[in-house]
Amino acid sequence: MRNLKITIQYNGKNYCGWQRQPNSLGIQGNIENAIYEITKEKVKLIGSGRTDAGVHAFGQVANFLINSNIPASKLPLAINSKLPKDISVIDCVEVDDNFHSRYSAIGKTYRYLIYHSQYRSPIYKDISYQVKYDLDIEKMKKEAKFLLGEHDFCGFMSSGSSVLDTVRTISDISIKTEEDLIIIEITGNGFLYNMVRIIVGTLVDIGRGKIDESLEDIISSKDRKRAGHTAPAHGLFLKKVYY
Amino acid sequence: MRNLKITIQYNGKNYCGWQRQPNSLGIQGNIENAIYEITKEKVKLIGSGRTDAGVHAFGQVANFLINSNIPASKLPLAINSKLPKDISVIDCVEVDDNFHSRYSAIGKTYRYLIYHSQYRSPIYKDISYQVKYDLDIEKMKKEAKFLLGEHDFCGFMSSGSSVLDTVRTISDISIKTEEDLIIIEITGNGFLYNMVRIIVGTLVDIGRGKIDESLEDIISSKDRKRAGHTAPAHGLFLKKVYY
Repeated sequence: MRNLKITIQYNGKNYCGWQRQPNSLGIQGNIENAIYEITKEKVKLIGSGRTDAGVHAFGQVANFLINSNIPASKLPLAINSKLPKDISVIDCVEVDDNFHSRYSAIGKTYRYLIYHSQYRSPIYKDISYQVKYDLDIEKMKKEAKFLLGEHDFCGFMSSGSSVLDTVRTISDISIKTEEDLIIIEITGNGFLYNMVRIIVGTLVDIGRGKIDESLEDIISSKDRKRAGHTAPAHGLFLKKVYY
Repeated sequence: MRNLKITIQYNGKNYCGWQRQPNSLGIQGNIENAIYEITKEKVKLIGSGRTDAGVHAFGQVANFLINSNIPASKLPLAINSKLPKDISVIDCVEVDDNFHSRYSAIGKTYRYLIYHSQYRSPIYKDISYQVKYDLDIEKMKKEAKFLLGEHDFCGFMSSGSSVLDTVRTISDISIKTEEDLIIIEITGNGFLYNMVRIIVGTLVDIGRGKIDESLEDIISSKDRKRAGHTAPAHGLFLKKVYY
């Protein structure tokens, strides 16, 4: 069996998320079906992690075992020919037997887009979170620095997760503006359920003055109620997975 | 009569362009109708210029005369409530009687997005031109500098235009890359019919080695046949109009 690693870009708007659901294929099921159409092999796609309904990806990674000897370099175009237009395989390489998309990952970068305007954006509407409030962006940048390093982020996790160890390390966070867009990028060794969206929601609540407390204190409180709202899924992109 | 100036963002994908056509409202007609629904006045919208079918805008500008005394600041949300989701009025101010969106304009910035990959992009598919060839981007940047300054750009104009004076000044051009995206921005005092799209097509043809000639010589030849192809409409954005 060969172990193939694929990189996938998708617009999550029309999907229930990465994972197959009882009534819906998810991104995963669509790709598995496309691989079946090409190779007639039923493969099991292992993703680097789930993405929720509506979340997008520039570089989700998955791997699967297959017998077919079709060259890895030929697979993306072949698979894409069987996929809906909002999913695209952008890379495929053969990897070592030990490679596992989830367990081998050492870090991830997420991007979050905020469209900061009173008026809706026809260009960014499906890929950004519209925030109408005035925002103190300098304050958001300053507070964001408290996220850096190793912390117990259990206050930044939605319920419904069975994770026990909630300590994660954030190695980089940047907040840039480009006209009405605010582009937030966060890199870490791992993320809890909804962690990026809660971080973004908390930064927005700090920026608009709804939360007065410092992010430093919110993190150390480990209290979900002291953090801000969960920013919506459609502004979030899984940008890159590191191995 | 009051003279109102509006700024408009739109995704041009589903439109025949800015202008009303016999069988289609265009962006212009949609906005005129929305203003009518709000004010019961039939206004005539004067755009800063037409955009072709499929072309997008971050900041198209138009003005119109109206009797209604509805405050300018209230109009964008009111108009947007009557517009399709892919058109949005993002600003409205009252201007001097003499202001004319087209004749008062002193310059424009256009943005063009190229998605540079063998594989299609679910995120950028409707707002970028996919180029699969290898591109010498450093060469494209170097050649682009020959566009700066005042030149007769008649070799960079599609037929069907009745313009007699084809001299234009380009004051700024930048080519930036961000992962698989190539972002080209061009600012000038005015642009001929399809000029930006022919400039982009020529830069792509230079970048992939299909055109060997320098852009300096192509410009001075004034020969449309020596310039490159017309890049497609859906990668083009009217970014800003200057007054």
